[in-house]
Amino acid sequence: MTRIPDDIIRALRGAKQVLIATHVYPDGDALGSQLALGEILAGLGKQVFLYGEETIPYMYEFLPNCKKLQTHLPELSEFDCAVALDCGDNLRLGRAMKELLLVHPFIMIDHHAGHNYFGDLQWVDSSRASTGEMVFDLAVALGAQISLEAAYCLYTAIVSDTGSFKYSSTTAETFRVAGELIGIGVKPSEVAGNLFDNFTVNRLNLMKEVLGTLSLHVDGRIAVIHVTQAMFADTGSCPADTETFINYPRSLTSVKVAVFIKEGKPDEISVSMRSKGEYDVAAIAAGFGGGGHRNAAGFRVKRSNIETVRELVLAALASVVV
Amino acid sequence: MTRIPDDIIRALRGAKQVLIATHVYPDGDALGSQLALGEILAGLGKQVFLYGEETIPYMYEFLPNCKKLQTHLPELSEFDCAVALDCGDNLRLGRAMKELLLVHPFIMIDHHAGHNYFGDLQWVDSSRASTGEMVFDLAVALGAQISLEAAYCLYTAIVSDTGSFKYSSTTAETFRVAGELIGIGVKPSEVAGNLFDNFTVNRLNLMKEVLGTLSLHVDGRIAVIHVTQAMFADTGSCPADTETFINYPRSLTSVKVAVFIKEGKPDEISVSMRSKGEYDVAAIAAGFGGGGHRNAAGFRVKRSNIETVRELVLAALASVVV
Repeated sequence: MTRIPDDIIRALRGAKQVLIATHVYPDGDALGSQLALGEILAGLGKQVFLYGEETIPYMYEFLPNCKKLQTHLPELSEFDCAVALDCGDNLRLGRAMKELLLVHPFIMIDHHAGHNYFGDLQWVDSSRASTGEMVFDLAVALGAQISLEAAYCLYTAIVSDTGSFKYSSTTAETFRVAGELIGIGVKPSEVAGNLFDNFTVNRLNLMKEVLGTLSLHVDGRIAVIHVTQAMFADTGSCPADTETFINYPRSLTSVKVAVFIKEGKPDEISVSMRSKGEYDVAAIAAGFGGGGHRNAAGFRVKRSNIETVRELVLAALASVVV
Repeated sequence: MTRIPDDIIRALRGAKQVLIATHVYPDGDALGSQLALGEILAGLGKQVFLYGEETIPYMYEFLPNCKKLQTHLPELSEFDCAVALDCGDNLRLGRAMKELLLVHPFIMIDHHAGHNYFGDLQWVDSSRASTGEMVFDLAVALGAQISLEAAYCLYTAIVSDTGSFKYSSTTAETFRVAGELIGIGVKPSEVAGNLFDNFTVNRLNLMKEVLGTLSLHVDGRIAVIHVTQAMFADTGSCPADTETFINYPRSLTSVKVAVFIKEGKPDEISVSMRSKGEYDVAAIAAGFGGGGHRNAAGFRVKRSNIETVRELVLAALASVVV
């Protein structure tokens, strides 16, 4: 665990107008950290602007104050500080990356490993399970009150990025912060209910369809599932409904790497990979222009199809799962 | 949170030969607490005997020292103390209940609500999420070292009975104890891997079959699934493989009560129910001679069939889900 750099504390204390951004295709840690830091800094009397290029995925609409997220860029010259949360690479800031980086000081706070440092001030700690934990410690260091709303956002960040305290990234620190957030009043079952027990019947039907596509390779050590636009249409479901499906092939005892191939936006195939232990899928994703962690990574391919992408991924994984 | 009664501390300190039992059809909290207390008391120089009438379910075979569980009763006159863990009703001690209760002092330690007190000394605290947490605090109060093996058993107990920190029973205390156990060296992902990522392909195929039986009732507020002996045969799976399946119907947004009807032992249908919030399924289970918590309960019916049991349960639930 690393200390929060003093210059980050000083920069945030001194700032009056803070722009807060996170990575594109934001997950629970990205959104929870962003909303929480917004709430925390607003509580310290600062003007904050929460920027993201997409509207919030429906699964995260329960997050307090999520309506404060803006999809348009503000007048950037007004800001005397910017923070990028949970974002390991400047490219993951999205379309507005160059404009965002015009704000100074630009602070990055992140827990991803294999980092492309950017901005002016960095606090990167890959020993932390989530950026949410780091924002909690930052709030304490700033002497800020953590409101119940901010606590819900931070707890969601932690639960999302640890799969509810199941991933190997979970540490005693994770439990310490989670316990503090419960002390503020967070109800764990409410967050879990929103994140995990939020299935529609359409979604359950989609899950049955997707599980039906399971194929195993390399003596059962690689599992592949896929979803097609036709499945979404047949079941009345949508791409956001596939969140967490990759956990099923991953949960097979024999499986070291699980792959989920999705017909997403028109002409685009997206691939998510989850691996166990030492099996590194981040390197594979990087080979296709994507990114992620060692055990969770992904990439996108234009103008292809599921069969071709499956063959490409299996060929690439031959170097990892031998 | 209640204090540990002094007479329980005294009784355990003074005991030389301790019999440790738990409830029939033991779950992770029952087995984890039993194995951990055995390890803790053995570390204090006591002779311990871990009794259970069934062999350990395969899902829990990863628990350290699980081979020490015995399915035969020892010579009971040798014991100067007995402890029943996680057991809210003397009937749940199983076939040997009367013999076990001949040992004195007989201590019960449990976190279930709606209790049938038995034995000589009781520590019951329904504000605790698991008996595992209570055994941790007991070990501290006894001044015992908690070995890595005992820590793994206690962590498994907690994770099992909170659904990995998702159930409403999860408290700041739960996180405090979990954090301490991580500090001793428990790897959360190892326990989660054993409890949740231990699927065989047969089990995944069984899951697809069982999800195909989903029926919804009372405007989608009750969901029922079932499993038959034929499904086990078709998929090469076994009853223990159905563990956690009830979470899928429970995860539907509209559902308040999920029911899982199982063709188990010959001539026996077992029913598990999971509910959300205020919906009390323990009372329904009690009406059929079963038991459990408000949000998780079950019962067994002899000489019946799935269709009849489904109608019976739906009729009984009419008083709960209106």
